[in-house]
Amino acid sequence: MQETISLIIEIIGTIAFAISGIRLAAAKDFDWFGAYIVGLVTAIGGGTLRDILLDTTPFWMVNGWYLTVTGLSLLYVILFRKQLVRLNSTFFLFDTIGLALFVVIGVQKTLDFDYPMWVAIVMGMITGAFGGVVRDILINEVPLIFRKDIYGTACIAGGLVYWLMIELGTSILLQQISCITVVVVIRLLAVRFNWYIPVLKNVENLKQ
Amino acid sequence: MQETISLIIEIIGTIAFAISGIRLAAAKDFDWFGAYIVGLVTAIGGGTLRDILLDTTPFWMVNGWYLTVTGLSLLYVILFRKQLVRLNSTFFLFDTIGLALFVVIGVQKTLDFDYPMWVAIVMGMITGAFGGVVRDILINEVPLIFRKDIYGTACIAGGLVYWLMIELGTSILLQQISCITVVVVIRLLAVRFNWYIPVLKNVENLKQ
Amino acid sequence: MQETISLIIEIIGTIAFAISGIRLAAAKDFDWFGAYIVGLVTAIGGGTLRDILLDTTPFWMVNGWYLTVTGLSLLYVILFRKQLVRLNSTFFLFDTIGLALFVVIGVQKTLDFDYPMWVAIVMGMITGAFGGVVRDILINEVPLIFRKDIYGTACIAGGLVYWLMIELGTSILLQQISCITVVVVIRLLAVRFNWYIPVLKNVENLKQ
Repeated sequence: MQETISLIIEIIGTIAFAISGIRLAAAKDFDWFGAYIVGLVTAIGGGTLRDILLDTTPFWMVNGWYLTVTGLSLLYVILFRKQLVRLNSTFFLFDTIGLALFVVIGVQKTLDFDYPMWVAIVMGMITGAFGGVVRDILINEVPLIFRKDIYGTACIAGGLVYWLMIELGTSILLQQISCITVVVVIRLLAVRFNWYIPVLKNVENLKQ
Repeated sequence: MQETISLIIEIIGTIAFAISGIRLAAAKDFDWFGAYIVGLVTAIGGGTLRDILLDTTPFWMVNGWYLTVTGLSLLYVILFRKQLVRLNSTFFLFDTIGLALFVVIGVQKTLDFDYPMWVAIVMGMITGAFGGVVRDILINEVPLIFRKDIYGTACIAGGLVYWLMIELGTSILLQQISCITVVVVIRLLAVRFNWYIPVLKNVENLKQ
Repeated sequence: MQETISLIIEIIGTIAFAISGIRLAAAKDFDWFGAYIVGLVTAIGGGTLRDILLDTTPFWMVNGWYLTVTGLSLLYVILFRKQLVRLNSTFFLFDTIGLALFVVIGVQKTLDFDYPMWVAIVMGMITGAFGGVVRDILINEVPLIFRKDIYGTACIAGGLVYWLMIELGTSILLQQISCITVVVVIRLLAVRFNWYIPVLKNVENLKQ
């Protein structure tokens, strides 16, 4: 039951991430191939870096559905392009829930490899946020999460709450639900109330 | 005999890939060091990512000639700069044959690690096409293969034909020659008849 | 004693690299989170790629102080922003000494894995220079070291001298001190006398 729910959320998250990549690729006049690759990298890039750092086989190489789901996401964007804008808030919600689950997956997998909790929190953030960074590099833009949005910080907050729940001796299910809740709530509140991280003031005009 | 032919083609492909990187670096006023690195990354970047994903030692770390050949390519561009433009169609041919062989190497190496065929096809494409993507990231351009050129798709078509020949029970040599032929023919036809992948229509003006 | 000195130099180098990333991030209006990530990647990016290529656990995943030191560097930039410009030459010196030590660490670690010396020299350069390349990719600029600065080449020169001292049968300490000295002296002389690597002349106006 829990596995089924997890899988459904992971598929929803993968679709939301892939569509975010495909839409940004479309805005840059990428062809279908380029859009597919950008969508795929957005969806699997974070987990791939995590698995390389953990020195384990990247998750999408042992299960083909990530590539399939990305293909279906591309097909959906091609066919139902005009409906997408109206669904923006739905996609934002999917993206946020997917992000939260990706953090949980990253933390859990790292702990399974017996790393300390601080490494797991870093890996949770990488799993959730790094795909979007590679997406922005591929479309030749400054990564969005470095300049606005409470995104990476929501991942870290979720990881810290995960840690707290472990220290409190709660069940794994409660640890994971707490983490997901914190990521989702922080991100929703941040968008609703326009929270942001302070911008670093420029030190000099000279490039170093 | 077959190994000798493979090695000669691989060297030709490495030179063609390295020179493509060096020329684009030159267009961006890179110095010799920068041009060398961009040429090297273009030539070995795809195979390096493949080997990291397969969790094996990157091929260029066990055989020094890739670094040497890239150095000779740089020397050639420095000395015979003016002749390069006249040789454009020769380089295009070398680049295409090199691409095709890189796909075969990527597919074969992945199958040797007992991955399923669909992973091998992805690795064939990564081996052939990813070096050019990193090249374009390093020179701060949107990757070319995402916006024009039948390039990544030719790699995938070659991989699919490889698969077909395996399923038909043909010899390894025939599998590899078929793959190479398909990649080369598709790429030549695509350039000759101006084939392209459809561009994805922009979904919105807003950046997400 | 030697370990303590090494550790102090490594911390100084990490701080210098992190601050260079944070300052460039500030010039691009990154928020604190983005600046932290760019600073961190500048400091640990080279060693991380090295460790992935060597197929060993990335160094910062077994010792938390790299993340802490980067956090303190960010705090320092936030609090003492105005004093930074006056300290430019101090930071340049720290950066140079850090670079030299990073090269030594990269060479030594690679030799410990029984790779030949030419691989170790490449890894020394990657350890020293690759962090700055990723930094420039993240802020969406053409990597600085490809267009000016004797930087990567100083790393290679240091690696070659390391090799020479090994061939001469000197002690490890002398090998390392020679390498550090060469990197530092070349970089200081290069800046003082405005040395540069020749720029590659543009081959064509056409993009490939």
